[in-house]
Amino acid sequence: MKELKDRIRRDGIVKAGNVLKVDSFLNHQMDIKLFEAIGREFKRRFADAEVNKILTIEASGIGIACVVAQSFDVPVVFAKKTQTKNIAGEVYTTKVESFTHGRIYDIIVSKKFLGKGDKVLLIDDFLANGKALEGLVQLVEDSGAELVGAGIVIEKGFQVGGDALRFKGIRIESLAIVDSMDEETGTIVFRGDEQDEQ
Amino acid sequence: MKELKDRIRRDGIVKAGNVLKVDSFLNHQMDIKLFEAIGREFKRRFADAEVNKILTIEASGIGIACVVAQSFDVPVVFAKKTQTKNIAGEVYTTKVESFTHGRIYDIIVSKKFLGKGDKVLLIDDFLANGKALEGLVQLVEDSGAELVGAGIVIEKGFQVGGDALRFKGIRIESLAIVDSMDEETGTIVFRGDEQDEQ
Repeated sequence: MKELKDRIRRDGIVKAGNVLKVDSFLNHQMDIKLFEAIGREFKRRFADAEVNKILTIEASGIGIACVVAQSFDVPVVFAKKTQTKNIAGEVYTTKVESFTHGRIYDIIVSKKFLGKGDKVLLIDDFLANGKALEGLVQLVEDSGAELVGAGIVIEKGFQVGGDALRFKGIRIESLAIVDSMDEETGTIVFRGDEQDEQ
Repeated sequence: MKELKDRIRRDGIVKAGNVLKVDSFLNHQMDIKLFEAIGREFKRRFADAEVNKILTIEASGIGIACVVAQSFDVPVVFAKKTQTKNIAGEVYTTKVESFTHGRIYDIIVSKKFLGKGDKVLLIDDFLANGKALEGLVQLVEDSGAELVGAGIVIEKGFQVGGDALRFKGIRIESLAIVDSMDEETGTIVFRGDEQDEQ
């Protein structure tokens, strides 16, 4: 998606340790017009799938998922990272390892909101090692819902998550795949950069 | 807002301890069409204010804020509940006490995304004891931005938060104010129920 890649090149900041900061428009401050364009692009790519629910994970996935949901005209469910008092006892749950925070946490979805008959599109802002997305896939499988695929805004193509999930047969549509980044020069190389693309 | 109150009456569940569960449409599964109507109503109420930024807090405020932002055509910033590696060092921060989780946590916003010249509308799903909203007000004050007011989806009118913040002179627009709830009968009394209202 050219508009997204241009925006990442313009406003993204490459930091040490292969960190790509896009907090000015994606996951701290959020450019809702860009989210709308992202929604239209996911709808174009998943036009053949009869998605009837979007599943994401708190926190930074939620905003994108809600705007993307407008293009699909479906509700959103977000997986919560810890059990709170206000959640029903009956939940699907699995464990996710976070490399960013160096810990393992539980994610949960109420059984009321995911189950047979649901055709689920996963939406998230980043795909790197893939642990969060694997957790969401597990919740969908446990619920008996059908997994349509995953729409990712930015995939770090040099990390294993995307390929591992594709190898399992999961359809992943990433709008920008970063193949390499250079902290010194700030250069970001996207997959497909060598081609003429829209 | 009649559509919202009707929805709360239909799908909200009153639980022991004055808990109102609205997780089927507001803060776990999210009805995006309802969020759009909520956005139009906040825009109507804050039509006179030249809002140029919406500030919310993770997690359940984010989805509502992003859809509401479409009615105002402004970006959203969400305050994060813990400092992560991916946040710049330069942040505004304050402490918030959570009664739900029985702990105190830090909330932070990058200084890059809030400051002089910003006219900020706060958006959140619930207002009860008001601690989270107080924290957001503090961040706006610390940043030098102008606080326009707060748009709240559901206020628990029998808790002190709303009145305490109004007493400080903060403009609070709550789309549904619950004055009392009955766990036995499931009855919910909204402020203004005795009037004919739209």
